[in-house]
Amino acid sequence: MKFTVVKNILEANERIAEENRRLFKEANVTVINLMSSPGSGKTSLLERTIDALGVRVRIGVVEGDIQSTRDAERISQKGVQVVQINTGGACHLDGNMMRDALPAFDLSELDLLMVENVGNLVCPAEFKIGEDHKIMILSVTEGADKPEKYPLMFHESSVLLINKIDLLPYVDCNIERIKEASLRINPNLEIFEISCKTGEGIDRWAEWLSSQIQPQG
Amino acid sequence: MKFTVVKNILEANERIAEENRRLFKEANVTVINLMSSPGSGKTSLLERTIDALGVRVRIGVVEGDIQSTRDAERISQKGVQVVQINTGGACHLDGNMMRDALPAFDLSELDLLMVENVGNLVCPAEFKIGEDHKIMILSVTEGADKPEKYPLMFHESSVLLINKIDLLPYVDCNIERIKEASLRINPNLEIFEISCKTGEGIDRWAEWLSSQIQPQG
Repeated sequence: MKFTVVKNILEANERIAEENRRLFKEANVTVINLMSSPGSGKTSLLERTIDALGVRVRIGVVEGDIQSTRDAERISQKGVQVVQINTGGACHLDGNMMRDALPAFDLSELDLLMVENVGNLVCPAEFKIGEDHKIMILSVTEGADKPEKYPLMFHESSVLLINKIDLLPYVDCNIERIKEASLRINPNLEIFEISCKTGEGIDRWAEWLSSQIQPQG
Repeated sequence: MKFTVVKNILEANERIAEENRRLFKEANVTVINLMSSPGSGKTSLLERTIDALGVRVRIGVVEGDIQSTRDAERISQKGVQVVQINTGGACHLDGNMMRDALPAFDLSELDLLMVENVGNLVCPAEFKIGEDHKIMILSVTEGADKPEKYPLMFHESSVLLINKIDLLPYVDCNIERIKEASLRINPNLEIFEISCKTGEGIDRWAEWLSSQIQPQG
């Protein structure tokens, strides 16, 4: 059985992502697309970031998961509006899924929309959703060879958060090597060392993120 | 621009995987397909497993990576034959890539072929390569919610290796919860707790693997 498809799925996606982006711009909402391997700390980072930004910033969250609403339940306890996208098998969010989630938000009531992608260090980097910045997390437990092995995500991201630095005494991980290799791939990458467990370094990340948010008209 | 594609990529893949499988059977080679998130310890497991099986078993290794030959270089120091597959962006190995790697091996000289997939807890589970068993690794640093969030890989695997148990004192991870949730998804899953760093638990895994290898004719 055969059928005809539009060849360039990525091109089609970019068109939809661009439409999302225009909507976000018009509403003055900054959007970040948060990506990492499974278990690197995306949901914990959201929790820490919401606490750090406090009531100054009106925040919405989109939780992307293949299935389950576990992360959305965690985040909703922080008192921000959360929408869950279940991809039903798909290994990444795309512009279309993002567009379908938008009616759940009143964009005029938001300054910042944080989108947690499916845990995957490969595919999410290929798909725009209308974000201002892709933000990636790498945990020190994953090892220092990851930039060389998964370069696209490092290339596409504006910020690399090196997480779980509280575990550095117990793992073999050379943070300087991560930084050097990442900056070779993407010289503009902003890098912050953080621990979502202890809170170390969260203030500098939150400061960077605040600087990206438009002042409220 | 449009073009015609075979609809069911997975069906086409299964046909090729089945051909690979037939070749392996004829040559009496047991094949395992090793899958996990990036940095969960696939390459370290290969090193430990090669040491544990020793000269009794004639081993070949296929290293799947998006790019780089880092893992193949590590494994070749163990004195076994290694073939590197670079997927050039693709987030998983498939039957076709596996078939292309086969001429590099003399199957009649092997008892066991261990294939390290691309680091990804999602996509590799969908694609057969001709293996006897899918084997997955989950590191305790990734958290206990992974079976619910990425169920397909747990469903498709014969064995779950819970790795980095040496880090248990330093992370919040309930191993019993991982086991219960995994067995709900796949009641036949064999589960071993291991540390590739200390070597703990490797003997039991190696014993299971040995039991899957055909006695040499």
